[in-house]
Amino acid sequence: MMDKFVYADNAATTSVSPLVLEAMMPFFNEMYGNPSSLYSIGREASEAISKAREKIAALLGCKAREIYFTASGSEADNWAIKGAAHANIKKGKHIITTNFEHHAVSNTMKSLEKEGYEVTYLKVSSEGLLSSADVEAAIRNDTILICAMYANNEIGTILPIKEIAAAAKKHGVICFTDAVQAVGSIPINIADLGVDMLAFSGHKIHAPKGIGALYIKSGTRVQNLIDGGGQESGRRGGTENTAYIVGLAKALELAAERLPDMERIKNLRNRLIEGIKKIPYATINGSLDKRLPGNVNVTFDYIEGESLLLWLDMNGICASTGSACSSSSLEPSHVILALGVDSEKAHGSIRFTLGHDNTEADVDYILEKLGPIVEKLRAMSPLYERIM
Amino acid sequence: MMDKFVYADNAATTSVSPLVLEAMMPFFNEMYGNPSSLYSIGREASEAISKAREKIAALLGCKAREIYFTASGSEADNWAIKGAAHANIKKGKHIITTNFEHHAVSNTMKSLEKEGYEVTYLKVSSEGLLSSADVEAAIRNDTILICAMYANNEIGTILPIKEIAAAAKKHGVICFTDAVQAVGSIPINIADLGVDMLAFSGHKIHAPKGIGALYIKSGTRVQNLIDGGGQESGRRGGTENTAYIVGLAKALELAAERLPDMERIKNLRNRLIEGIKKIPYATINGSLDKRLPGNVNVTFDYIEGESLLLWLDMNGICASTGSACSSSSLEPSHVILALGVDSEKAHGSIRFTLGHDNTEADVDYILEKLGPIVEKLRAMSPLYERIM
Repeated sequence: MMDKFVYADNAATTSVSPLVLEAMMPFFNEMYGNPSSLYSIGREASEAISKAREKIAALLGCKAREIYFTASGSEADNWAIKGAAHANIKKGKHIITTNFEHHAVSNTMKSLEKEGYEVTYLKVSSEGLLSSADVEAAIRNDTILICAMYANNEIGTILPIKEIAAAAKKHGVICFTDAVQAVGSIPINIADLGVDMLAFSGHKIHAPKGIGALYIKSGTRVQNLIDGGGQESGRRGGTENTAYIVGLAKALELAAERLPDMERIKNLRNRLIEGIKKIPYATINGSLDKRLPGNVNVTFDYIEGESLLLWLDMNGICASTGSACSSSSLEPSHVILALGVDSEKAHGSIRFTLGHDNTEADVDYILEKLGPIVEKLRAMSPLYERIM
Repeated sequence: MMDKFVYADNAATTSVSPLVLEAMMPFFNEMYGNPSSLYSIGREASEAISKAREKIAALLGCKAREIYFTASGSEADNWAIKGAAHANIKKGKHIITTNFEHHAVSNTMKSLEKEGYEVTYLKVSSEGLLSSADVEAAIRNDTILICAMYANNEIGTILPIKEIAAAAKKHGVICFTDAVQAVGSIPINIADLGVDMLAFSGHKIHAPKGIGALYIKSGTRVQNLIDGGGQESGRRGGTENTAYIVGLAKALELAAERLPDMERIKNLRNRLIEGIKKIPYATINGSLDKRLPGNVNVTFDYIEGESLLLWLDMNGICASTGSACSSSSLEPSHVILALGVDSEKAHGSIRFTLGHDNTEADVDYILEKLGPIVEKLRAMSPLYERIM
């Protein structure tokens, strides 16, 4: 076992909060009834789900009946995109998205392209940003859906979703945002935001892995992804995961309470960035201004991100090379490439994402280990030797 | 609180086994890493998932890489049916199923009909059975999928899936079975069964609600339902629900160990049936021979099933009028109607499903309460009075 353990991969997943676990437990034990059942232990489960839905709606600024529970952010993304595409096919087959979405979005777009839909992938800037004017300029008569992520999972940059939603509304186009990384990290009010659909996930905000939700504005035409019984107003079949639904509501409540802590996390992030800047040939990726508070993404020239990760792991530090969901891939990150970083350099990118459990001591420990590891790895690199 | 509590709705859902909960807990706490992450707590989660997959495959008689985790039986049903339909559309658009499937299947068929697929709904007999010859006779040149449930959720009758799979194979048609009610209640070996796909769910076998699995035989052409990252060999996006996956494997292991207990449950069921037969105007629905061990489905003439349920609930007895998933519907059960029971009588149907936790005392308690409640409800029925 390591002397020290620093978890700095909160964008990949988070630990389950003890308070969330406590809220969930009764639904594994005494209140195990099927929420659709008419007897007492079924009704108790059903009421717990209703309360969770109301709590989430109140926290996000929408109506309870506009919140639909799913098993993941990915399911919510697939449902929103495929559901809107299929339900609005008579209007057109054109979809607008960005070139740095999560794979749950980009691979869903690829599926739709195979079905004959046409997808415009707007290029983000070298800062990882996009203007609403760029989005509006891409709207055509046959555009049925605009899909832009709220905050990027690898570099943490934040898109102007409110302005994008306004442009979509102006042209009568459905606007969906994957807010998996944003919810819990920045204040979000759906009524103010004006989107038609919004997806988020529990395990990024200290609920367990296996629960997500999709906001669907009343009146939005969306087909079901999972047909079945009457659950979720007949729009998503499958016996409800009562425990995790209750856990998700608790986690979102805690996240809202802890939003002020994001200022501290942002300071930790800045401390980490300042320290990293002292390491030679290190470049921070993405805008520092329009960015999630906990995200640091850096490219170290002349090293492999994966080697760096392994050395950090040996020192008890958890970080990632990009999206955890594609960590087994040998391809460089499509997000880092989207910024214009060349393929070879992109391989040397690494992401630290700080959360509520991180401290100044954690950041100092990362910095204490990071510089020497980078130096050691570069010493083994023939390319670096040649350049020196 | 009731003096006595008898849960006799195990086909709707089951309590989470303490051993399952114990197996799950470490993945909420210390081993919370994203299974796709490369560092230690990610690898531990990933290894736990691999072991769970291997255990399930060994218990069901298939290869580990043929087991894909989902969030429910409904998701598995949707994936199998829509996935096979979309992947094989060039071969044809004809699907064969039965007229008494679960709504996760029947409503998925309705979706495909809207897309232009043609679905043949084979009628089950008044006993709730179907022969493989009937299935084979319905196969056409453009048939791409046969979909028949292993055991019915309302009346517990068991279909000859091995023979149906053989007929499908003979004609080169994919065979899928929804085995949600069968797994854990009767011995199942997929290699022996010969199906191409099989769906099951955790919460029917004392795992939590929110986990299921789909067996897909290697080489079977099936499109993804949920696109995303590289999880589940790139076939089902979404961060893995490590805790529930581990719980599902534990639950299936326990179910296999407890299969011999099904003989005792069958005896309890027979005791319940014998007692019910003493109540006038009561008809047991479905074959008593080819039937799950725990299922009793009975139609009481001249009463409303829902009123009966409420009175049973007031006496601490949990039962159901049919599928929990459609309990909020006012329509009579499509399964009971499929047996040829008329619509009015079908409203008086009720299901008791016994499980491992039930005892002889439970059955005697149900019988002690049931007769008088039926009598009381009939005394309030003008129709019954007229007939008497």
